[in-house]
Amino acid sequence: MIKLTDQILTETIRKRPLDSYKGTYGKVVLIGGNHNFGGAIIMASLATVYSGAGLTTTITDASNQTSLHSWLPEAMFADINDLEQLTQLVLSVDVIVIGPGLGTDAKALTVLQLVLKLVTLKQTLVIDGSAITLIANHRLIIPQTKYTVLTPHQMEWQRISGIAIKDQHPDQNWLVAHQLGATVVLKSHQTEIYTDTKIYQNTAGTPAQATGGMGDTLAGMVGGFCAQFANQDNAVLAAVFSHSAIANQLAQCQYVILPHQISQQIPQFMAKYAN
Amino acid sequence: MIKLTDQILTETIRKRPLDSYKGTYGKVVLIGGNHNFGGAIIMASLATVYSGAGLTTTITDASNQTSLHSWLPEAMFADINDLEQLTQLVLSVDVIVIGPGLGTDAKALTVLQLVLKLVTLKQTLVIDGSAITLIANHRLIIPQTKYTVLTPHQMEWQRISGIAIKDQHPDQNWLVAHQLGATVVLKSHQTEIYTDTKIYQNTAGTPAQATGGMGDTLAGMVGGFCAQFANQDNAVLAAVFSHSAIANQLAQCQYVILPHQISQQIPQFMAKYAN
Amino acid sequence: MIKLTDQILTETIRKRPLDSYKGTYGKVVLIGGNHNFGGAIIMASLATVYSGAGLTTTITDASNQTSLHSWLPEAMFADINDLEQLTQLVLSVDVIVIGPGLGTDAKALTVLQLVLKLVTLKQTLVIDGSAITLIANHRLIIPQTKYTVLTPHQMEWQRISGIAIKDQHPDQNWLVAHQLGATVVLKSHQTEIYTDTKIYQNTAGTPAQATGGMGDTLAGMVGGFCAQFANQDNAVLAAVFSHSAIANQLAQCQYVILPHQISQQIPQFMAKYAN
Amino acid sequence: MIKLTDQILTETIRKRPLDSYKGTYGKVVLIGGNHNFGGAIIMASLATVYSGAGLTTTITDASNQTSLHSWLPEAMFADINDLEQLTQLVLSVDVIVIGPGLGTDAKALTVLQLVLKLVTLKQTLVIDGSAITLIANHRLIIPQTKYTVLTPHQMEWQRISGIAIKDQHPDQNWLVAHQLGATVVLKSHQTEIYTDTKIYQNTAGTPAQATGGMGDTLAGMVGGFCAQFANQDNAVLAAVFSHSAIANQLAQCQYVILPHQISQQIPQFMAKYAN
Repeated sequence: MIKLTDQILTETIRKRPLDSYKGTYGKVVLIGGNHNFGGAIIMASLATVYSGAGLTTTITDASNQTSLHSWLPEAMFADINDLEQLTQLVLSVDVIVIGPGLGTDAKALTVLQLVLKLVTLKQTLVIDGSAITLIANHRLIIPQTKYTVLTPHQMEWQRISGIAIKDQHPDQNWLVAHQLGATVVLKSHQTEIYTDTKIYQNTAGTPAQATGGMGDTLAGMVGGFCAQFANQDNAVLAAVFSHSAIANQLAQCQYVILPHQISQQIPQFMAKYAN
Repeated sequence: MIKLTDQILTETIRKRPLDSYKGTYGKVVLIGGNHNFGGAIIMASLATVYSGAGLTTTITDASNQTSLHSWLPEAMFADINDLEQLTQLVLSVDVIVIGPGLGTDAKALTVLQLVLKLVTLKQTLVIDGSAITLIANHRLIIPQTKYTVLTPHQMEWQRISGIAIKDQHPDQNWLVAHQLGATVVLKSHQTEIYTDTKIYQNTAGTPAQATGGMGDTLAGMVGGFCAQFANQDNAVLAAVFSHSAIANQLAQCQYVILPHQISQQIPQFMAKYAN
Repeated sequence: MIKLTDQILTETIRKRPLDSYKGTYGKVVLIGGNHNFGGAIIMASLATVYSGAGLTTTITDASNQTSLHSWLPEAMFADINDLEQLTQLVLSVDVIVIGPGLGTDAKALTVLQLVLKLVTLKQTLVIDGSAITLIANHRLIIPQTKYTVLTPHQMEWQRISGIAIKDQHPDQNWLVAHQLGATVVLKSHQTEIYTDTKIYQNTAGTPAQATGGMGDTLAGMVGGFCAQFANQDNAVLAAVFSHSAIANQLAQCQYVILPHQISQQIPQFMAKYAN
Repeated sequence: MIKLTDQILTETIRKRPLDSYKGTYGKVVLIGGNHNFGGAIIMASLATVYSGAGLTTTITDASNQTSLHSWLPEAMFADINDLEQLTQLVLSVDVIVIGPGLGTDAKALTVLQLVLKLVTLKQTLVIDGSAITLIANHRLIIPQTKYTVLTPHQMEWQRISGIAIKDQHPDQNWLVAHQLGATVVLKSHQTEIYTDTKIYQNTAGTPAQATGGMGDTLAGMVGGFCAQFANQDNAVLAAVFSHSAIANQLAQCQYVILPHQISQQIPQFMAKYAN
């Protein structure tokens, strides 16, 4: 297992070329946030925008429009019940993040199935939270994409992989990740990342992160990094490491870290590693 | 009467174990915030989340969904009129905080009665504000729980204890607290805490705290501390002392302290005492 | 004309007694903010709460509930269309601020007439913005109160006093103020204050304040100071001077000052003068 | 091509006269923000108010009222569907900014056509984003005004000028700008400004600005500067340069800059150049 260090940041985060524009840094849609879990998609969207994605649209329940914009006028809004608009948006982007606060009801399932049908070989797909549970429960097929990332915590990984938490050993995990055709970010206090060919372990992180919404923030960061950096494996690894390294910094003077505080630190953190 | 000092903080606030996750730090629901008093449940929820509770859900009037998330995407939302969802949520948590901004109308009474019926011997119950008044006015029975906290100000204590404000002496107060089977946080400029066996007096605090919402913030902190720290007496004492000690710090350069400012300082404050 | 200096602050802003609670610092209602001008009543409410009023309720159009609480969970909300609730609230407070963003339509007139009828000899009444215009246009009688303050700019003063802007000289102004039975804060780049017996001129202030919402903020500060400090003349004078003195501080490094920035500085500013 | 430097700031940003009031600094309406793109008009409005405009009203979809006021109580709100109110507001102001987040549907077209009909020879008109696309697609005539500014990015300039991006050379661009009777701010990583008689090139700016919403912020700044400074050419040039120069400052420690962060720095930035 390869230990992740900040070397992944210097390898991944590139000084931006002068002759670039917002299109250079990718288009992202985030899909999630039902009537109860609107905060999840807000936190994920904050992470995507503060990571530097070029253009971000958040597709969520209409009741979350105003709170999204109260945090983030930078994100465009679309109503998750308007499937025609959702279809057009999904087809137009580089990266799709689905799952934060999506819920697991029939409506969520419909949206997820539609997105899995729409996604193309030119797109990166990040599957998080309830979307993982829905895939597991309804035995949905993860489609061929340019690149797919799953970000389960251990219970979600049990559901989708069939491996009980106590049996989640690296070899076994990698095998299933490989079968799923996806990079797997298996979240725990020592998050492991299973790419097509390697296994990595995160060395940063702090128990001050152990609070609701941290995973949503990570999913959004993965989306934002994948939108900007060509090497998708490195983008995922750099997002995971940055997320924890920022937390480590904040934990020097905070007992608990709120997820939105991590997002607000991303631009300053990345600046230190851009070469 | 035992004088509370910051010793209670070093005894209570523990360095978080590395191998922990959000479930380790407890699930909390906060119930309150009608159409008029939405700010109260927002302030209480801020306090719970910034105290470090693992997972927080706020059950409130639908008109407060957006302002809740504008402050706190970290909290999940549930509509207080959906009693079925409320039932499921209440049954699933470690700590229930009821009262901030709940109001005293028929709907509030229905919700309170339901919660008092649902709460189990495995749960901590924090009863604040209008919930105390409702219990007093309707002579509701406080149920058996793992641990119950009442956080009345002096007038609310008069209502529920039957002791007029001028007669609220420690011995008398302790007797009624004991009969109620609850720890009582009797709020005044020198807050007293009546536990099962002892009486404590808060030594921190400042008149700069004398503004609406301070009690809501305290109730949320009590909930957040009880969710994390096994010794429930100590959790309550540490929450009360922290609330005032943070205020003392802020009062060095503020004439008045807004309740939400206290919550925002909790993570930094707790970090100084974690051992 | 007496020049106002920061001496008024040391005379007015008192060190808070230890044995005090939120009731000690007054109850305030602010009434205003229609569908278009919701920001005005938010700015006024921010000023009242950050000034240190004990308990603040904002009565405004229902469409402003969420944005009010997004800024200020500390303020309670009431719907301006619920005249019964408005009546109860108005009768229960020490200070009433009416006008910021109220508008001048029939509904606004109804509300203003009701408030003018309800106000008692035990209450302070602050009349600002559109409420002044409505009084002028409909020749409403300003009722007897404990203390009444009008905060017109020069055009509003022309409307209510009948004195054209070019003729607004101190003697003439004082005479009309006296007839109206009110303290008049005549806002300009050198604001004048006409009390029952004296005329003051503000010496602080900066053109960086010349932006929409400054007057709403001042009205809220007057309300907050009158709620706390027994000498109502001094409370008004101290509010006017503080408002400008904070602006002067901010103008040292800002070309323009946003009204909400003034409110956020009030607690720190007042702390320097509390004796 | 004249290189823009901070000399334009010292020439343009004037120390405010003591004897001034909000009317001195201009009235602005911003029109845009449909159900999906509400963030765009919020960002533009932030830029206008933080630039120092005297009085700002935002005409937008009703679903954006609350998020606008959550950022900016200083801006008044009007519903874009109320064309009568829109008409009155447009007729009453010095500067009209139309386009940010307006969209290109039939409703947007109706509003744009109405505004183009209403605008007078005493008003400055700033045309941005979807308004440019609508003018191009529907061959609308840009009316005679006191001063008109177009702020297209290269693709929008292609649509309205008929010049393909690869052929957008200064001489050709200037000719079309001249025919349109407008100052053109052609946005790219080296933004060019075509005034009636000269061509300027921005020398500030950073790829950290390459994120959605930057153009909305610039449009709002152009509106805010035109409202305050008599020389309209200089106002546009100073707005463009300030926007990028603030970004340069922030980019010293941020990998990406969020548009709203630029607005929040405007008052401090302008203060350094006011003479």
